[in-house]
Amino acid sequence: MLAPDEQDSRSLIQFFIMSGKLKAEMRRGWVKKLGMKHPESVADHSYRTALMAMVISDSRGLNTGRAMRLALLHDLPEAIVGDATPGERSGARKSALETKAMEEIISDFPKDAKDLYRGVWREYLEGATKEARLVRQLDKLEMAIQAWEYANDAGDPSSAKEFWESAKGHITDEALVELLMQVEP
Amino acid sequence: MLAPDEQDSRSLIQFFIMSGKLKAEMRRGWVKKLGMKHPESVADHSYRTALMAMVISDSRGLNTGRAMRLALLHDLPEAIVGDATPGERSGARKSALETKAMEEIISDFPKDAKDLYRGVWREYLEGATKEARLVRQLDKLEMAIQAWEYANDAGDPSSAKEFWESAKGHITDEALVELLMQVEP
Repeated sequence: MLAPDEQDSRSLIQFFIMSGKLKAEMRRGWVKKLGMKHPESVADHSYRTALMAMVISDSRGLNTGRAMRLALLHDLPEAIVGDATPGERSGARKSALETKAMEEIISDFPKDAKDLYRGVWREYLEGATKEARLVRQLDKLEMAIQAWEYANDAGDPSSAKEFWESAKGHITDEALVELLMQVEP
Repeated sequence: MLAPDEQDSRSLIQFFIMSGKLKAEMRRGWVKKLGMKHPESVADHSYRTALMAMVISDSRGLNTGRAMRLALLHDLPEAIVGDATPGERSGARKSALETKAMEEIISDFPKDAKDLYRGVWREYLEGATKEARLVRQLDKLEMAIQAWEYANDAGDPSSAKEFWESAKGHITDEALVELLMQVEP
């Protein structure tokens, strides 16, 4: 239970302020590879990823609460370490850096909450459940849809190719592959 | 179950593209009253609202899946009707307009999904559950935090006053009032 005393309020507000940094964190791929000045934020991407997770998890009878938690938290460490392209940060170094950031972000939470969110984060990293494997692939599908949208807006469909190919390399779920085919550049 | 045939894929992608419009829909209050050119998007706001709903619902032992669904959907109609300040759109006219937009957004969904999301939307509008009343108030608290952040960034704390007062008029939950006091301008 949330005790409404001032100390807890202060650390909760600090958490909300910290997570709000994702609104101003531009997704690096669009800045670096498409030269965009005001692309979507990490929060924008996380919002649609969570909505996609909700709809697809509901349609499959998965644990939608679990899927939405995973999606809402999957890029939260970027509030501290910032977004990076796969070329700039990947693999074990990325996991270690982001796990450390996640620990810092939840450091003032009560033990129960800390255990819960630490567990969700590990579940995501490891793709340990159906929901985690879904959200990991939706993270890529969401990017491919956004690439397709930006490319069409710019009148240059081929500029989405690199992002689509990258998503294709990660998505194995049959129904998600069908979705990906809908936004092939 | 999601049938991975092409027709379903097409309408799902259309839904994702439609909901992605919230990434580019700027929150009107910041444009109109603070004169900002690149304020947060409706998706940015919905992301933090959903994260706040998750953490507070978890801490209270509420139905967090329900709270996150409500938060993710609460501004989705704005993908069609756009954001508006309370002065521009409110009350029954706002509800009717947004309900119509929500119906349009989910019109291609299978019956089960349509019933589910229509139910979540009605639950939100009516504040019919603890989770809906929480998310309705978090919608305002999130705005007050954002106003406080923008006002501080601009070195003009008093510019948050109007937004804070508006939130104060809506928030009755004791613990949320405590949180609101932390960002009083």
